[in-house]
Amino acid sequence: MTEQRDTPPTSTWKLAGRDLSSRLIVGTGKYEDAEETKAALAASGAEIVTVALRRVDLKAKDNLLSWIDRDRYTLLPNTAGCYTADEAVRTLRLARELGIADIVKLEVIGDPTTLLPDNEQTLVAAKMLIDEGFTVLPYCSADPIVCRKLEEIGCAAVMPLAAPIGSGLGIRDPHNLELIIEAANVPVIVDAGVGTASDAAVAMELGCDGVLMNTAIAAAKDPIKMANAMRLGIQAGRLAFEAGRMPKRRHAHASSPTIGLIE
Amino acid sequence: MTEQRDTPPTSTWKLAGRDLSSRLIVGTGKYEDAEETKAALAASGAEIVTVALRRVDLKAKDNLLSWIDRDRYTLLPNTAGCYTADEAVRTLRLARELGIADIVKLEVIGDPTTLLPDNEQTLVAAKMLIDEGFTVLPYCSADPIVCRKLEEIGCAAVMPLAAPIGSGLGIRDPHNLELIIEAANVPVIVDAGVGTASDAAVAMELGCDGVLMNTAIAAAKDPIKMANAMRLGIQAGRLAFEAGRMPKRRHAHASSPTIGLIE
Amino acid sequence: MTEQRDTPPTSTWKLAGRDLSSRLIVGTGKYEDAEETKAALAASGAEIVTVALRRVDLKAKDNLLSWIDRDRYTLLPNTAGCYTADEAVRTLRLARELGIADIVKLEVIGDPTTLLPDNEQTLVAAKMLIDEGFTVLPYCSADPIVCRKLEEIGCAAVMPLAAPIGSGLGIRDPHNLELIIEAANVPVIVDAGVGTASDAAVAMELGCDGVLMNTAIAAAKDPIKMANAMRLGIQAGRLAFEAGRMPKRRHAHASSPTIGLIE
Amino acid sequence: MTEQRDTPPTSTWKLAGRDLSSRLIVGTGKYEDAEETKAALAASGAEIVTVALRRVDLKAKDNLLSWIDRDRYTLLPNTAGCYTADEAVRTLRLARELGIADIVKLEVIGDPTTLLPDNEQTLVAAKMLIDEGFTVLPYCSADPIVCRKLEEIGCAAVMPLAAPIGSGLGIRDPHNLELIIEAANVPVIVDAGVGTASDAAVAMELGCDGVLMNTAIAAAKDPIKMANAMRLGIQAGRLAFEAGRMPKRRHAHASSPTIGLIE
Repeated sequence: MTEQRDTPPTSTWKLAGRDLSSRLIVGTGKYEDAEETKAALAASGAEIVTVALRRVDLKAKDNLLSWIDRDRYTLLPNTAGCYTADEAVRTLRLARELGIADIVKLEVIGDPTTLLPDNEQTLVAAKMLIDEGFTVLPYCSADPIVCRKLEEIGCAAVMPLAAPIGSGLGIRDPHNLELIIEAANVPVIVDAGVGTASDAAVAMELGCDGVLMNTAIAAAKDPIKMANAMRLGIQAGRLAFEAGRMPKRRHAHASSPTIGLIE
Repeated sequence: MTEQRDTPPTSTWKLAGRDLSSRLIVGTGKYEDAEETKAALAASGAEIVTVALRRVDLKAKDNLLSWIDRDRYTLLPNTAGCYTADEAVRTLRLARELGIADIVKLEVIGDPTTLLPDNEQTLVAAKMLIDEGFTVLPYCSADPIVCRKLEEIGCAAVMPLAAPIGSGLGIRDPHNLELIIEAANVPVIVDAGVGTASDAAVAMELGCDGVLMNTAIAAAKDPIKMANAMRLGIQAGRLAFEAGRMPKRRHAHASSPTIGLIE
Repeated sequence: MTEQRDTPPTSTWKLAGRDLSSRLIVGTGKYEDAEETKAALAASGAEIVTVALRRVDLKAKDNLLSWIDRDRYTLLPNTAGCYTADEAVRTLRLARELGIADIVKLEVIGDPTTLLPDNEQTLVAAKMLIDEGFTVLPYCSADPIVCRKLEEIGCAAVMPLAAPIGSGLGIRDPHNLELIIEAANVPVIVDAGVGTASDAAVAMELGCDGVLMNTAIAAAKDPIKMANAMRLGIQAGRLAFEAGRMPKRRHAHASSPTIGLIE
Repeated sequence: MTEQRDTPPTSTWKLAGRDLSSRLIVGTGKYEDAEETKAALAASGAEIVTVALRRVDLKAKDNLLSWIDRDRYTLLPNTAGCYTADEAVRTLRLARELGIADIVKLEVIGDPTTLLPDNEQTLVAAKMLIDEGFTVLPYCSADPIVCRKLEEIGCAAVMPLAAPIGSGLGIRDPHNLELIIEAANVPVIVDAGVGTASDAAVAMELGCDGVLMNTAIAAAKDPIKMANAMRLGIQAGRLAFEAGRMPKRRHAHASSPTIGLIE
């Protein structure tokens, strides 16, 4: 595939002060073993990887954190499994003491079955963490009002879900995502719900700045191949967004293009 | 983007006896000029390009056919603009006399407004052409019965539309495409209707062997960038198909996966 | 529910010379017994019922035909189970000899698994039947070109499917139905694929003249209640079509309405 | 349409202690004049009508409240136009002093453009109002966590939106509505976003207890006819829900039904 050498790079972007090429952020859970995890991370092309603090034995010598190459990847600790603002804040304070990171993914879960976010508690926790100097990337509903509030209190990005965590259902409500993207002055990263490469491409075509995923790669039959698919899907979607797609028409001879209109 | 060197190649495929790497076939119409056409073809990575015989002055010295690099691209002449089996057959006979190609895209249009295919006339023309030794790739409806008949009379592939030509509406009825793919013993190439990179990825994820498009690239604001987006979208979709996507679930804790079920 | 007395009647319509109030046509297969069939027909409010000739012992004394009240219902014999034009034509000639009806539902199936129509054979059979004086209502694909041809040879209506027979998947491609409705000068009746009351309403809102269904009623847990649901769903959809729905907008303050545009 | 006499009544339901037959709640804004409003209310069959307190001159003698027949309709005052919990609570206290109603629709808007709810402020206001003895029906996002919290603090129902107020976009995310319905122990009423009769039917088929709408009726070309369409669409959807729809299958011969699975 020699033609790949000619691929125009998609535009770089900035997240929390970092310059990034890759628009794909990946999780580290649910893999068979360390080897598979490392190979999937490499294939994904991700520059940021997220780690669930509650699933790591922070005091063990040989844990996930020890073998992730931190020269290559920016570590984004997250608070998966926390159900209150307090729990999430305490978890992150501990991580800071252990020197892990100041840029964090805040996740306050509202329900152990659906793993949907508790936006009310997320707002409380985000405010506390920002006051303590953390750089906060919050997981939240695809709710333009919640995203605006999170931005107003100083979050470095907003990370609305596309569908429930681990569902693989894809972009359930593109309309709300569009409203969020139009209003936001910080990066918008779709977090959770993507199931396959075209879902990732759709998110980018809507104008999202990035996509965060874990299960869609780790639970594919061939995770390494899917990591590659996701890397290319993200690039394809971003290039299509930048290229400016053709108008939708009822047929080639229809007089009124319908691009950008409600579906 | 150094990680691209590690991209696992998607599987190659065979179409009408040719071994192909690229699963994207592109048209040559609607570009600004020859330079843009050439650049878009190159960026698309296509190995086969289709040319509307009726839009080329076959006797002129400096026509589209003269400047397409036929060492690089397999030329696939098509019968766009033909409304009867007779017209299509006569057009292709003329092309054969001029030495253009024996592998042809058969297109018999049913209606000048929607440009939808006339499947009945397409069947008639396909039979005549195959009897005369042509290798026929027919544009047709996403109709499993029509596709089965076209295969039975000896077509080298079937090319159902995703949506009307020039509409950019994407895959309108994935269910019918799935039925076609399940039943077919020849390659299934989505022809017409794709609008953006995620549409191309969806077609590949459904299990199509390839995608043919023209307007989606030529009518983008930046056709070269969109050609790149399509190339990557096709690769992403194929890799995702080969990787085997995660099951769809209502949420991570749902007991029954729903992959492969009706949407 | 006294307010029902004030329901404005939806407009009546004409099918094959008959004036009809009900826009719901129902099948007679798949019910538990004759009692359930009769009750479901009554609850549906249908004025036309269709009967599969191949499933009736035409010579038996006590068959379906004997107990359908033909003062109340117009009988529409159909050729379900026929796979060629010849079979369908022979079946209908026999029915005519037995005095059943001259208005017939033509169904030529292309595939025993999907039960999708063979449009090519349907065109052949329709022509033969019309030449012999039958009034033909053909089951066909949601293909505007096929529908135009069926109208041109003299069919009294066209009956495109919404989804495969017995699937209950609802309107799979509203866009094609819209193209058919815009072009047709005969009634357009959605035949097959409806699964629930909202599907029937959607068909009517698109501008269809009627809906024909069987499994959606007979295979509901409570067929009588579902027959009522379908009757009301058809009325609701027709009234909404006649009322002229509000424009779709991104939100109340959006400047451009998007009604009628491509979804 | 004599068959309507046989319509089996859909089950009655209870909302805030009232027994209701109609599952349609309608707004009173955006009509041409009082006559049209009255005719639309009558045609809708609604038993509860909602009135925006901020749009009524509560001290005027001849206002909306004066001519709504309160023997026929239960009045549901709402706080449309309020942007904080405080505003909403103060507005409702005033209405109580004027003797309007103790059962109220709480609406705290987050954004003047999209009119999406501010769920955080809605929770604050709901708590205050319930403490003061109001019966609270809150407008909120289609967010299962927010709905659970509103139920926990004592709301008499939850009223998630289907799409933005005045958009007519229909049910944007049926999956979230299903999660809400499964978890709720109070009635679930879809509030806002319905555009036509089939949208209302879909809401009922998902298992919602009722639907509240205004623009879809008032902004139709013929509001009275659309009010009738909505009345029948709600009944059709409820009957279909109670009847238990057929399974969805890929086609009639598919072995695995797919009803209830993710779309």
